[in-house]
Amino acid sequence: MRRSNLALVLRHISGHGPCSRSAVAVATRLNKTTVTSLVSELQARGLVKETGPQHAGSVGRPSVALVLDGSRVGALGVEVNVDYIAAIATDLAGRVLIDRRISFDAMGSGPERSLDELACVIEKTLADLEPLGVTPAGITVAVPGLVDTTNGTVVVAPNLGWRGVKVAERLSRADIPGDIPIGVDNDANLAALAEYTFGVAAGTSDLVYLTGEVGVGGGVISGGRLLGGADGFAGEVGHVVVDPSGEACRCGLTGCWETKVGLAALVRMATPDRAYGRRSQIVRDPEERLAEIEQRRAEGDPRVDTAVAEVGAWLGIGAAMLVNLFNPRVIVLGGYFARLADLLIPAAERELARLGMSGAAGRCRFVASDLGFGAASRGAAGVVVERALSDPANIEIRHPQPPA
Amino acid sequence: MRRSNLALVLRHISGHGPCSRSAVAVATRLNKTTVTSLVSELQARGLVKETGPQHAGSVGRPSVALVLDGSRVGALGVEVNVDYIAAIATDLAGRVLIDRRISFDAMGSGPERSLDELACVIEKTLADLEPLGVTPAGITVAVPGLVDTTNGTVVVAPNLGWRGVKVAERLSRADIPGDIPIGVDNDANLAALAEYTFGVAAGTSDLVYLTGEVGVGGGVISGGRLLGGADGFAGEVGHVVVDPSGEACRCGLTGCWETKVGLAALVRMATPDRAYGRRSQIVRDPEERLAEIEQRRAEGDPRVDTAVAEVGAWLGIGAAMLVNLFNPRVIVLGGYFARLADLLIPAAERELARLGMSGAAGRCRFVASDLGFGAASRGAAGVVVERALSDPANIEIRHPQPPA
Repeated sequence: MRRSNLALVLRHISGHGPCSRSAVAVATRLNKTTVTSLVSELQARGLVKETGPQHAGSVGRPSVALVLDGSRVGALGVEVNVDYIAAIATDLAGRVLIDRRISFDAMGSGPERSLDELACVIEKTLADLEPLGVTPAGITVAVPGLVDTTNGTVVVAPNLGWRGVKVAERLSRADIPGDIPIGVDNDANLAALAEYTFGVAAGTSDLVYLTGEVGVGGGVISGGRLLGGADGFAGEVGHVVVDPSGEACRCGLTGCWETKVGLAALVRMATPDRAYGRRSQIVRDPEERLAEIEQRRAEGDPRVDTAVAEVGAWLGIGAAMLVNLFNPRVIVLGGYFARLADLLIPAAERELARLGMSGAAGRCRFVASDLGFGAASRGAAGVVVERALSDPANIEIRHPQPPA
Repeated sequence: MRRSNLALVLRHISGHGPCSRSAVAVATRLNKTTVTSLVSELQARGLVKETGPQHAGSVGRPSVALVLDGSRVGALGVEVNVDYIAAIATDLAGRVLIDRRISFDAMGSGPERSLDELACVIEKTLADLEPLGVTPAGITVAVPGLVDTTNGTVVVAPNLGWRGVKVAERLSRADIPGDIPIGVDNDANLAALAEYTFGVAAGTSDLVYLTGEVGVGGGVISGGRLLGGADGFAGEVGHVVVDPSGEACRCGLTGCWETKVGLAALVRMATPDRAYGRRSQIVRDPEERLAEIEQRRAEGDPRVDTAVAEVGAWLGIGAAMLVNLFNPRVIVLGGYFARLADLLIPAAERELARLGMSGAAGRCRFVASDLGFGAASRGAAGVVVERALSDPANIEIRHPQPPA
């Protein structure tokens, strides 16, 4: 009971602060003494602080205002994708403290080595949080695949070549403090949450987010809630077959939407000498590949415009399916789609207008994400923040006061 | 305030009855006097009745139990589809009082004549409710198309040839008592609600319902809620293009899923001499067409098995898309799909297993609806019941007591 009241009080202060203890008592229907005690506990846990004039006298003192203390508790979101590992740490107010990405060949490294590298990135980020006086409340790992969130296992991630990989269990054996809870979830779902909370279309209660990576996944916010489906697998648009006579997909099927619009498809068409999977290629961060594509376009290589027009059209074909099925107001283009949005959107809009159901297609627009390749890890950190706000009894700060 | 408390008390009695006034007071946190007054009003509106031993004495009398009085208030759901009009009237407990369907060529009749016919069916059904002592609380009309539910207008219904048809406004000019509210909604969405509430997969919080009619639509229950999308248009699976080199669809596109699995496609392949749109054909109820298909199959006409296998395979191809995007536990086959389920499901399952994402496809099964062609009108009546329970202040019964 105290545990849920603690969350109730924290939620109120987080959503309505600055507010007085009396105001919290009225709003939560808890009595004043209880609120005072709960607030003390939240202060001790580094979650709430006082603000405004603080007179010491006991008679007629102005009521002291409480606000969320965002600064001393942190959240870590990390993402392992085909060609990079990303990490974002935020505080409880969602401010980004650390944002890094390293190039990494997860596809070629296999799950063991990839998880070793992921563990290193996590350990380094935690070490960097330490001098900031921030206690991490949890870690969420984003993976481009189907995830059993109940046990942190990746059921299948075609582009990583993973099947049945116990991510949470493996990380719990790394040099990460055992009291930090570790969750695992699908990258597109986490990115969709980030867009809904922090992104260019924040607050749009019906939106679809598309991960423009080597793999293409979808995260769907419908009626203001993340669409999970029975197993949390909803939104897997990348492996809907759109061209049975097309290319083989890493998932084993032929002609998946991902083979038409994924970064590997663009690279293969625009800069064939740089295609994924060629032995002569070193690992490259997607940003490097995009810079090269843009440079060749500037140099007048006609293959680039042809490739972009082709990908844009297929993006619109898939978008029409998404509009007919989810009726979103916005389709947020993430990852590399965002970087090339100005080039992709005109062709995509034409196909959406042609193939999407009238009434809904015209009211749905494409927007480029401004969260870049960090969207999934940002959303992963957001999930940790939400969990901390929902169950503050789990939080124990290591530094009673931040270092001077 | 009284209005919402009235709903609160009714909801509690509906969900937890039989229960005493004291129990209602405890559960709703309303005081006993208020509950007594609210219960009196609900009794006067024919929504609640007493049950169990009713002693008149005031000292130590056993508390009287209250239950939902389902019998005196009714809900009317009607459906206009390509080849029939259906009507179902239920009482507030969901018991079916009237269930009828007439063959009607809505496609050939145009909106004006179709709405005249619909009004006739409604008037006749209301007249039949009268001697049962049932006061209708509302009417909901199901239409196979996109509906603006805020004003009861059909935006577009390709198979009816309707565009911008103001159904609610037109019916308000018919001979229907002006105090009966009229709503309009999409047939598949209403049928999905009926399945979730009354059907073979009732209570399955992630399910997709498919209308097997001339048109094929989808209604999606996700996380226990109907998926609406930004405009209530979600789930329009019938017009996703699955074969760009296929047949022209009535919606103007080519190769929509509906052209592969709709009843018109089956009839065209199985019994080409009976194809929709042939001038020599009289209007036929879908049941008649199905009976003929089954008879010819029994007679050994090979075209029937070929047609069913073809439709079944395309059903599975579309189901794979639905599984990847919605991750449902069950796909409920409605309309004609239900009648032919035993023949269609094996081929559909093969394609779903082949094309659906592993992890989700294997955990999703097809089931045949047992609500038949009445699913949408059953769901439409259900919506009226829900609205009545949510705002009982709108209900005024015409017959204080049912006729003897």
